[in-house]
Amino acid sequence: MSSDQSPARPVGRGAKVRAAVHAAALAELVDVGYAALTVESVAQRAGVHKTTVYRRWKDRESLLTDALAEHMAADIPVPDTGAIGGDLRALARSLVQAFTSPTGQAVLAAMFTGAAHLPEIAAARRHVFGDRLARAEPVVLRAVERGELPAGTDAAELLRTLAAPIYLRLLMTGDPVDESVADRAAHVALAAARAGALSAPAGP
Amino acid sequence: MSSDQSPARPVGRGAKVRAAVHAAALAELVDVGYAALTVESVAQRAGVHKTTVYRRWKDRESLLTDALAEHMAADIPVPDTGAIGGDLRALARSLVQAFTSPTGQAVLAAMFTGAAHLPEIAAARRHVFGDRLARAEPVVLRAVERGELPAGTDAAELLRTLAAPIYLRLLMTGDPVDESVADRAAHVALAAARAGALSAPAGP
Repeated sequence: MSSDQSPARPVGRGAKVRAAVHAAALAELVDVGYAALTVESVAQRAGVHKTTVYRRWKDRESLLTDALAEHMAADIPVPDTGAIGGDLRALARSLVQAFTSPTGQAVLAAMFTGAAHLPEIAAARRHVFGDRLARAEPVVLRAVERGELPAGTDAAELLRTLAAPIYLRLLMTGDPVDESVADRAAHVALAAARAGALSAPAGP
Repeated sequence: MSSDQSPARPVGRGAKVRAAVHAAALAELVDVGYAALTVESVAQRAGVHKTTVYRRWKDRESLLTDALAEHMAADIPVPDTGAIGGDLRALARSLVQAFTSPTGQAVLAAMFTGAAHLPEIAAARRHVFGDRLARAEPVVLRAVERGELPAGTDAAELLRTLAAPIYLRLLMTGDPVDESVADRAAHVALAAARAGALSAPAGP
């Protein structure tokens, strides 16, 4: 906080300003939405001067895409309950929680309406989705080792199957998402994997 | 055809102009995209005067949202192969085909980027998704009658499960969709339904 203003700690200051401006940008996104957000209002909220923002981001769009990408890249905790059913439910519930919070809703709206036309946002969407999936793959690999799932189960495909009905509701139908949607998604993905519907294709 | 131009049948002309302008709007969408499309270029392509377009649609946005909603509402054929596996594969393949055609790609880009901020588009997305689902429900009901699926299988939920991985790729990850994606989606939905993961919740 006040140490930010101390000239004795120049090293941490850049990262600290960056984090404060990101947080302020997300908070503004929640309050006023993508279209109405200005660099001035973000700077004021972060307690920095406008020129401090412009020194780091060339314009409103690059500030926003940066804040959105960073938010989307934040870790989803990878559960290890000892059983694949519990792990998949925990993962699906984390995803639901991430997108039903006020910040999650504002981020989703910005990424799929306000900023949807920006190539950086499309790239962030794809990249981050891939990253999140890869981090959760141990959940599936451990289940295969424990004999809960068939050998050869495609971990990435199982995790896409888990996430798909949640994103369908968020992006397409607008139906509410809650824990029962998460638990159903886990049940579906598990049943499909056990039946061998999510095995990797045979090698060449 | 030519009898439509007869002054003795004024009734059909409005519908014909409407269809021609819709078709021209979609073709322009494919060629130049949402942002660059003008009422002038659509009118010229449809072979009608600009004022004819403005008589029916108040502006560019209402013309485009109307054309998009009409396109999305077009029937997807409801298959009846005699077995649930074949029916689900046919449905999923229709969906993949609808969105991998040049028009389908342009419509998707317009609905999720260019026009994503318009409330009419969000409503069209939700409404049309619901309509398409409802039309395909007989596929599931017939399978329950034939004893291929458990009694109490939730038809709408099964169809959402079928569509979800296809939309996830189209909207989120940008991974290619093809017949193998469609067939996998059918396999997953069927395995989940057979395992009872897609049963309707017990009544109150």
